[in-house]
Formats: sequence, C-alpha cells, structure tokens
Amino acid sequence: DHPEHYRLMFERMHEVEPTEQGMLEAFASFDQLVGNVAAARSLRPLGVGTDVEVAQQLWSALHGAVSLELLGIGFADDPDEAFEAMLDALLAGMQVGARGR
Amino acid sequence: DHPEHYRLMFERMHEVEPTEQGMLEAFASFDQLVGNVAAARSLRPLGVGTDVEVAQQLWSALHGAVSLELLGIGFADDPDEAFEAMLDALLAGMQVGARGR
Repeated sequence: DHPEHYRLMFERMHEVEPTEQGMLEAFASFDQLVGNVAAARSLRPLGVGTDVEVAQQLWSALHGAVSLELLGIGFADDPDEAFEAMLDALLAGMQVGARGR
Repeated sequence: DHPEHYRLMFERMHEVEPTEQGMLEAFASFDQLVGNVAAARSLRPLGVGTDVEVAQQLWSALHGAVSLELLGIGFADDPDEAFEAMLDALLAGMQVGARGR
C-alpha cells in the first residue's frame, strides 16, 4: 500500500548508508510484522521456527516481489497475480510445514 | 552460489540504468530457471500457472532473501536456515497448490 515508503526503507540502502532514523523505522515495521505473525499463529499453526523467523521468511519473499516490481523487472504477464500466487504458495507451505511438526 | 554475479545482475540496477548486456544476461538466467521449472514439473506438479509464472514466483522470493542478506538486513539468527525455511515453505506450498487444481 505504500510503495514509496517501502522504496525509501529499502531501495535507498543500496546507494547510501541507512540513517539511524531509517533503521529505527525498519525495525518498527518488522516488529509490527512479528506481532501480526504471532497473532495469526495464536489462531492456527503457521510456519516453522520462532515468530521472528517466520516473519523473516515472509519479509524476504515480499521484499523480493516488491523490489522487482519497483524495478520494473518481471516476466509474468500480471504482476499482481504473480504476487498473490507467490504469497498464497508461501502461506500454504507454511501451514503444511507447521502441521508436519 | 554466485553472490557477486547476483549483485551485479540486480543490485546495481538501483544505481544505474541496466545495460543491454546486463539485461540480456538477466533474461538468459531467468530463461534457465524457466527450463528448470519445466523439468521439475515434468516429474511432479509444482505451482499454479505457466512455467514462466511459477519461475517468477520463485525468482521473486529468492531475490528478496538474497538481496536482504547482501544488504546485511535480517532478523533471524541464522540467515542460511531462514533462507532454507522460506524456500522449503514456498516449494511445499507450490506442491499443495498444484495438487489442488
């Protein structure tokens, strides 16, 4: 929902050292994601590892999809559909993985 | 296996317009991934969509994990384990998704 915010948070890190303020904002965003993961996991099993580890897996995958889209690099006809399909697969796999434990 | 190659292929695009040569190499790499996806799918169902769409989903997720690791941004204690767990979940979900069709 906030592509420009996301770009500022991550893409700029390639060009400049992140500011202390920027890092604090990134930490706060990640912390919020961890909270959401914990809330989801209180309802049903999701993923393997700690809440932080599961949040990191989601963050990594989403970061890749978003940053490639911001860069305009994509081979799927419909970027939104590709994003949804990737996220659906990852979440489905996290549910399988959690049940397998 | 080739972090520097990967960095050259993608990270540099943030700073400069990709060269024609760079884009050709990226296309060739993606094409190879599509071939590997097609080969895997000839053995068992994997993912939803065309070979290109499934390859794009994998590429996006891997790009995110690799680029965050190159940037030194990660909240999991063990980046390798986090990477493996993300990939395991995505592939497991792709198998579930394919069977569900």
